[in-house]
Amino acid sequence: MNVCEKIEALRGMMRQYGLAAYVVPGNDPHASEYMSSHWFEMQWLSGFKGESGTVVVTLDKALLWTDSRYYLQAGIELEGSSIELMRESDIDCPSVIDWLAEHVQGSVGVNPEMFSVNDFADWKQKAELKSVDLIKPLWTDGRPAIPQDKFYPYSVDFAGESVESKLARMREKIAALHGDALIVSALDEIAWLLNIRGNDVEYNPVVISYVVLEADQCTLFVDANKIDTMTQNYLDFNNISVHPYEAVFAYIAGLEGTILYDGARVNEALYEAIPEGCKAINTKSPILVDKAKKNAVELEGERIAMRQDAVALTRFFKWLEEQAFKGQSDNVQSTKVTEWDLMEKLHEFRMMGENFVEESFGTIAGYLGNGAIVHYAATQDHCAEVKPEGMLLLDSGGQYLDGTTDITRTIWLGGRIPQQAKLDYTYVLKGHIALARARFPRGTRGNQLDALAKQFMWEAGITYGHGTGHGVGHFLGCHEGPQNVRTDNNPTVLEAGHIVSDEPGIYRTGKWGIRTENLITVIPAKTTKAATTEDEWLVFETLTLCFYDTSLIEMSIMTEDEIDWINAYHVRVYKEVAPLLNADERAFLARKCAALER
Amino acid sequence: MNVCEKIEALRGMMRQYGLAAYVVPGNDPHASEYMSSHWFEMQWLSGFKGESGTVVVTLDKALLWTDSRYYLQAGIELEGSSIELMRESDIDCPSVIDWLAEHVQGSVGVNPEMFSVNDFADWKQKAELKSVDLIKPLWTDGRPAIPQDKFYPYSVDFAGESVESKLARMREKIAALHGDALIVSALDEIAWLLNIRGNDVEYNPVVISYVVLEADQCTLFVDANKIDTMTQNYLDFNNISVHPYEAVFAYIAGLEGTILYDGARVNEALYEAIPEGCKAINTKSPILVDKAKKNAVELEGERIAMRQDAVALTRFFKWLEEQAFKGQSDNVQSTKVTEWDLMEKLHEFRMMGENFVEESFGTIAGYLGNGAIVHYAATQDHCAEVKPEGMLLLDSGGQYLDGTTDITRTIWLGGRIPQQAKLDYTYVLKGHIALARARFPRGTRGNQLDALAKQFMWEAGITYGHGTGHGVGHFLGCHEGPQNVRTDNNPTVLEAGHIVSDEPGIYRTGKWGIRTENLITVIPAKTTKAATTEDEWLVFETLTLCFYDTSLIEMSIMTEDEIDWINAYHVRVYKEVAPLLNADERAFLARKCAALER
Repeated sequence: MNVCEKIEALRGMMRQYGLAAYVVPGNDPHASEYMSSHWFEMQWLSGFKGESGTVVVTLDKALLWTDSRYYLQAGIELEGSSIELMRESDIDCPSVIDWLAEHVQGSVGVNPEMFSVNDFADWKQKAELKSVDLIKPLWTDGRPAIPQDKFYPYSVDFAGESVESKLARMREKIAALHGDALIVSALDEIAWLLNIRGNDVEYNPVVISYVVLEADQCTLFVDANKIDTMTQNYLDFNNISVHPYEAVFAYIAGLEGTILYDGARVNEALYEAIPEGCKAINTKSPILVDKAKKNAVELEGERIAMRQDAVALTRFFKWLEEQAFKGQSDNVQSTKVTEWDLMEKLHEFRMMGENFVEESFGTIAGYLGNGAIVHYAATQDHCAEVKPEGMLLLDSGGQYLDGTTDITRTIWLGGRIPQQAKLDYTYVLKGHIALARARFPRGTRGNQLDALAKQFMWEAGITYGHGTGHGVGHFLGCHEGPQNVRTDNNPTVLEAGHIVSDEPGIYRTGKWGIRTENLITVIPAKTTKAATTEDEWLVFETLTLCFYDTSLIEMSIMTEDEIDWINAYHVRVYKEVAPLLNADERAFLARKCAALER
Repeated sequence: MNVCEKIEALRGMMRQYGLAAYVVPGNDPHASEYMSSHWFEMQWLSGFKGESGTVVVTLDKALLWTDSRYYLQAGIELEGSSIELMRESDIDCPSVIDWLAEHVQGSVGVNPEMFSVNDFADWKQKAELKSVDLIKPLWTDGRPAIPQDKFYPYSVDFAGESVESKLARMREKIAALHGDALIVSALDEIAWLLNIRGNDVEYNPVVISYVVLEADQCTLFVDANKIDTMTQNYLDFNNISVHPYEAVFAYIAGLEGTILYDGARVNEALYEAIPEGCKAINTKSPILVDKAKKNAVELEGERIAMRQDAVALTRFFKWLEEQAFKGQSDNVQSTKVTEWDLMEKLHEFRMMGENFVEESFGTIAGYLGNGAIVHYAATQDHCAEVKPEGMLLLDSGGQYLDGTTDITRTIWLGGRIPQQAKLDYTYVLKGHIALARARFPRGTRGNQLDALAKQFMWEAGITYGHGTGHGVGHFLGCHEGPQNVRTDNNPTVLEAGHIVSDEPGIYRTGKWGIRTENLITVIPAKTTKAATTEDEWLVFETLTLCFYDTSLIEMSIMTEDEIDWINAYHVRVYKEVAPLLNADERAFLARKCAALER
């Protein structure tokens, strides 16, 4: 079937079910950031291959909402499909639900597995929703299966806490909320809770599954052929019973008493399975909250992963400076270097690291103006040639058994540095340092600290639209909640063990993008010198270990404290990373970590 | 009747109404900060004279909740009353409603006039509330009447917008919300909407009244004998009909259609008066929102008031330095100087100012350790003697026809300055400057800027518990919403015309309190040099015009930018205030405004 035929077939079923519209969002049942291709329903129906979008089909129209990253791609891929492109980043573009409320009379069909309980409830205020999966009966040919890779127990040597201890703690929390069962559908929560990891999804080592946790039972819903003997023994030992993945709905339908679920992450189909007689309570997931506070073993693992990552980055930057353009400087018409080549090369260096598993997201290598496109993703076919001149932004990360990394460095590849580039780089760096060295009382939220990272560029009338810091998991999602450092009114207070990124940026369309990112973790401040209140104090420990490009620093606007901070950081980077390098690499790193001259 | 007799009489009525408890909060029906003594029900019943408290009477117990400011006073005044003191600032003290939920079985009587709709709804979740006023029938002897002073039109020359224009604008907003009527009970909203002012309450020039605004009617509920001929003509001219104050309930009971009210400010009794057939919509008051954005005339008035205030403060500080301790320095056993004397003297200087009406709140003069008590209020009988040595904190303000002022200065009266005092003063000053000179994009909330004022003291492990900035009205409340600069998650974004205070502080118990406060107003930034986004930019204009005590500044931790800011401010203060002073005063001011040496 081509796209037009698929849409017509869908309309046939819509008529059968009496639906005026059907919505296919680009989601999976687990509210995942990275999805298995099994759930690429939006892509299958529309022919649009982007990672984010929502298709709406009415009896006489078909529309696809996507954001500005994908306007160009969608325009090309939707050609001839009869699907109209809705540019959702444009200020006058209605949201999907507002468009439905205005244009559709009658029922709107949705697959409740693809909506969180909260989103479904919000939509329900504006449209007459009907829960039905019309894609499953249509998409029979060539639909990828749910990945069938084996998953594995994640050693307590890395996790720092046994599954027994985690289950006991969560059961206490469930009891405190007067609950009889907790439904868990977020894959990183399941992986953390049961100390398991897998290969079902790119970039995130999670296992496609559900969990229902009760006082006397812990039930994992996962396909049995993904379990080898060792894993089965591990599950048995920990009294985790296994049911088929699809059996979760029937299991929930048999529950009694009070059922807890996190409406922001649990899908509507699970909610609809809860029997009438039960009391259902929408509550923030206690797993989410505890998972975010890394224990001492997890933090020590992060430090180990950071050293591995630093070795890879040091080798990469040395290669970039000394090897990458070698042919070109000899004026030989040698092979060109592209953004894609840099992504591949960096991946190669990372793969040499101990306990490296995979990248934690697709590397962003943005050369010149491409660095100013915040979600830029070069592909092998569409990428710029990189020359030994101008600005390069490089945002990348790794999944190690020890922990997850995420780092951005912006470097100058050669040529005369424009004064504005130095100023931009230094505003970003000053903000990055201000957040990293903040001391703040217990009870402080991330949104209270956000302006510390922006104050210097604000003074120059510059700001950026993305968050300053996202939460980071431990050998799990490179993005996790509930902690972050953003402008929005997130009520989460920063707590010891939270890991967030520290990544202010400045973007000049067509010229350059500058972003500087480390991961930092919240730790108690050692002394509370001269505190006049009873508050406990918190500070950040910087986890990431990689030098900054000091050639881009405009020293005249740096304070003594900031220079001291950079110098101390570079001393630490050298001290921790040099022992893992050979003599040549050490010399390179020493040069990069040289003290700033005042 | 003494307190015990009053409580017994109340219990008699409670039995009659079948109530297990009765609550008397220290509120009035208008959610006022400053109340007429007519509503001192809590004080009348308990004998406690403090400004804040809640009495709960059960059939066998009586309790009074109040905060730490009043523990001492309440302890004394409640003696022999059988009323138990509940110390509500203590961490283990239950809130009134939590105590009721735990200890009371049966109905809890409350006067719905004394609760906002929202508070009533919150309480209702935890207790069985019954609306009934049992104080009115009991407090018949000697209850002060509602003030009967005449009120007056407030000239459009000061208000900057005619009542006609304001009413038209609000009617548009009511229509946009599909409302037929808006109930207004906050006194500052009524005064702003109708351009009227009065003398009913201390410190706030408001008129005790209600308003119901409809498409074709504006009805003011106020006692007729408070209206003289001129005011009656003004009301007639603007088509504002007058009904008796108490008639508001009957009037609301006769409304039809959709009724809008702000549940945070409108009292429960008004809400209960809305007829069954009406649709009642709880919405943020559009008056509150618009009132906060001062127009050009109001802002020009504020600048005029600030000059008047600066003259008074300059004369006061000159007197304090040159006259106050004169007898003492001659070693004559002259009259002592007390905190109360300073409050009186400052009031005298303010009264000489053009268009001065009254103080905008009770002056806080905190000498030495008294300055560290955040809500310290010296009285004639209980106040410290002030000597020409050590730290003095002075927080005061005036109501002028032109506008409202609120300023805090902390000065050193003499003797050797401890290094910690200089550091504390300078941390506060650096934070005060950082907020005052912040540039930020449109859409920024006050809570995003709060840390700018705290970052320097945080670095030293110091913080403070009060807000950094409260909203300020225009010849109205010295505290107003919705704008502020606080840690809490207030969703209000800062907008041009908002006035807030900028008042970080450091408090050393038993030693000193340091607070530095100016009023600042949000204005569009003139240029958006080098902005990389489409955002509009905002900055603050400092309104307050009074020198800082530069002898307390620790210059070694001041940056060039901060020194420049202080010097430019002092140049401006001198330029704007000196023309209003005599030669002696000018010389004093010039000395105080001398440029900081680097």
